[in-house]
Amino acid sequence: MAKNDKRAPAHLLGVDLGGTKILAAVVDREGNLLAEAKRSTKSEQGQQAVIDRIVAAAGEAVASAQLDMGQVAAVGIGAPAPVDVATGTVYNAPNLVGWDQVPLGRLLRDALDLPVHVDNDVNVGTLAEHVLGAGRGTRHMVGIFVGTGVGGGLILDGRLHRGFRYAAGEIGHMVMSADGPLCGCGRPGCLEAYASRTAIEREVRAGLEMGRPSILPQLMAQSGKSRLTSGLIAKALAADDELMGSVISQVQRYLGLLVGSLVNLLDPEMIVFGGGVVEALGDPFLEPIGRVARERYLQQRDADRVRIVAAQLGDHAGVLGAAILAGQQSGIAFSPGAPT
Amino acid sequence: MAKNDKRAPAHLLGVDLGGTKILAAVVDREGNLLAEAKRSTKSEQGQQAVIDRIVAAAGEAVASAQLDMGQVAAVGIGAPAPVDVATGTVYNAPNLVGWDQVPLGRLLRDALDLPVHVDNDVNVGTLAEHVLGAGRGTRHMVGIFVGTGVGGGLILDGRLHRGFRYAAGEIGHMVMSADGPLCGCGRPGCLEAYASRTAIEREVRAGLEMGRPSILPQLMAQSGKSRLTSGLIAKALAADDELMGSVISQVQRYLGLLVGSLVNLLDPEMIVFGGGVVEALGDPFLEPIGRVARERYLQQRDADRVRIVAAQLGDHAGVLGAAILAGQQSGIAFSPGAPT
Repeated sequence: MAKNDKRAPAHLLGVDLGGTKILAAVVDREGNLLAEAKRSTKSEQGQQAVIDRIVAAAGEAVASAQLDMGQVAAVGIGAPAPVDVATGTVYNAPNLVGWDQVPLGRLLRDALDLPVHVDNDVNVGTLAEHVLGAGRGTRHMVGIFVGTGVGGGLILDGRLHRGFRYAAGEIGHMVMSADGPLCGCGRPGCLEAYASRTAIEREVRAGLEMGRPSILPQLMAQSGKSRLTSGLIAKALAADDELMGSVISQVQRYLGLLVGSLVNLLDPEMIVFGGGVVEALGDPFLEPIGRVARERYLQQRDADRVRIVAAQLGDHAGVLGAAILAGQQSGIAFSPGAPT
Repeated sequence: MAKNDKRAPAHLLGVDLGGTKILAAVVDREGNLLAEAKRSTKSEQGQQAVIDRIVAAAGEAVASAQLDMGQVAAVGIGAPAPVDVATGTVYNAPNLVGWDQVPLGRLLRDALDLPVHVDNDVNVGTLAEHVLGAGRGTRHMVGIFVGTGVGGGLILDGRLHRGFRYAAGEIGHMVMSADGPLCGCGRPGCLEAYASRTAIEREVRAGLEMGRPSILPQLMAQSGKSRLTSGLIAKALAADDELMGSVISQVQRYLGLLVGSLVNLLDPEMIVFGGGVVEALGDPFLEPIGRVARERYLQQRDADRVRIVAAQLGDHAGVLGAAILAGQQSGIAFSPGAPT
């Protein structure tokens, strides 16, 4: 290595801005995560306080990587909201108090004196799985993230498909039934109203109220949690809880129908499932989804080649994807190697 | 113009292979249709007879344009079946007797001694609307064609999105309800089972059997037709037939929900509706679709900019799109002007 390589801005900084925490990480051009740092978001303390904590996390990550900011080429950040990628403006963010039309790109650029690129957190996670995770080498890939809600991202022709208003990928709000249960968005029958952790909790509570036997009340009391977490869902399934089993079967059925629709529409080579529910339940959760989906493929030729797989990057998808975004938007060549 | 321009292969030949007829047309590089010719398909007479009639129609179109085959740069053809675009192979074509795995590209290349490019007829029609019709200048556009079935095509990032098995665009087989009416494909709840002419006829017949009053039996007897045509649907609506009105309202509702899902997933700037039903009913058919769709958009910002419009090219979309395909696949620059 030439001596001056150390001073060249060869690294990328990825930031994952969440409703509860901020993660920042330094990533090299091969996709290796060199160091990371964490802060609480505490958006109720105001926008400037959040910006300050992003800057602090970024500084700490760069310092732990034994670098200085001059060695960072660009910053990427994923925000839990619709984002105008061209301007870096964050629109109505449901989990960030008072965040609507926030010029996050400009604010961070001023604070860090570096190029900053902003995108939606699910897009950024999808990008990470495509470049460094389960979807490496695919040309058309769909990311589906099942947690409190259901998020989605599309890689088409090797690139993130954002749509003309930067509003694409809202898989959770595809219609699964004209008269289905009410979704958090206020409309009936969205996929999210059938297949999110919120939907699972609603169905479990309805079952308990109808007097169906279940170990869930006992598990929830033991854990001291008032909400149904992905971990508790996994525990109930592991204990062969019949109520949870039947609720999850319905979730798998709807996710299978969704995948069937997506394959008929987009014909991707891979569907990557991630998010808290999928991480907790693992590969066995995906098998019935694939079975239902495959029955819906209009084109049965080469149906085996459509792969349905679990995401690989877990909690790191956000910072890695943000770093990849920073590289792509800055025109920096990024050559993925094996993550360390 | 230089003298030798007349002999340069500056023209494109587009062929629309349908279940009942073959259309061939000569198109110049500005998208002007110079001449066309027609033959019956009569696929029951065997593959070679169909190939011969395609060649005859092509020859007649070229002759009517006062050109010879040496002035044709390439041939494009749209087939009513899944097509492997890389090899020009036509897979199981429901409306062409005995057509499965037919190397149409190679057969026509041998017969015409010209480069031949094959694609699915709906893809080709979508391409035409994008380059010469309603979708001119758009970057992301969805074509939805409502006839006996419901076909679809996707223009994403300015280009036809075909998918990795060339199976994309099957909008008619997106799931609208897990337990809906049976589709022609054998599965329950596909969009096509709610929103095609086949579905309209099924619902109208069910209404008549239940004794609902309607002028349709009278209209059908007058026309001497045993099937419900798009023209009869239009006549019944024009006469304020209550049964037809309620059936069409349901169709519009499902098409609206579909558009809502497509906008949430792909965020296109335009949805182009074509096909026999849409041509017969015109713009008034689209307005309620737009109303239902818009209520489903998760992203309401700039919702006005998502346009839902009628296709412009009608029956010519097939030959024009095939000619455009020929140009694109041959790397020939194509500069659309105003069609003559």
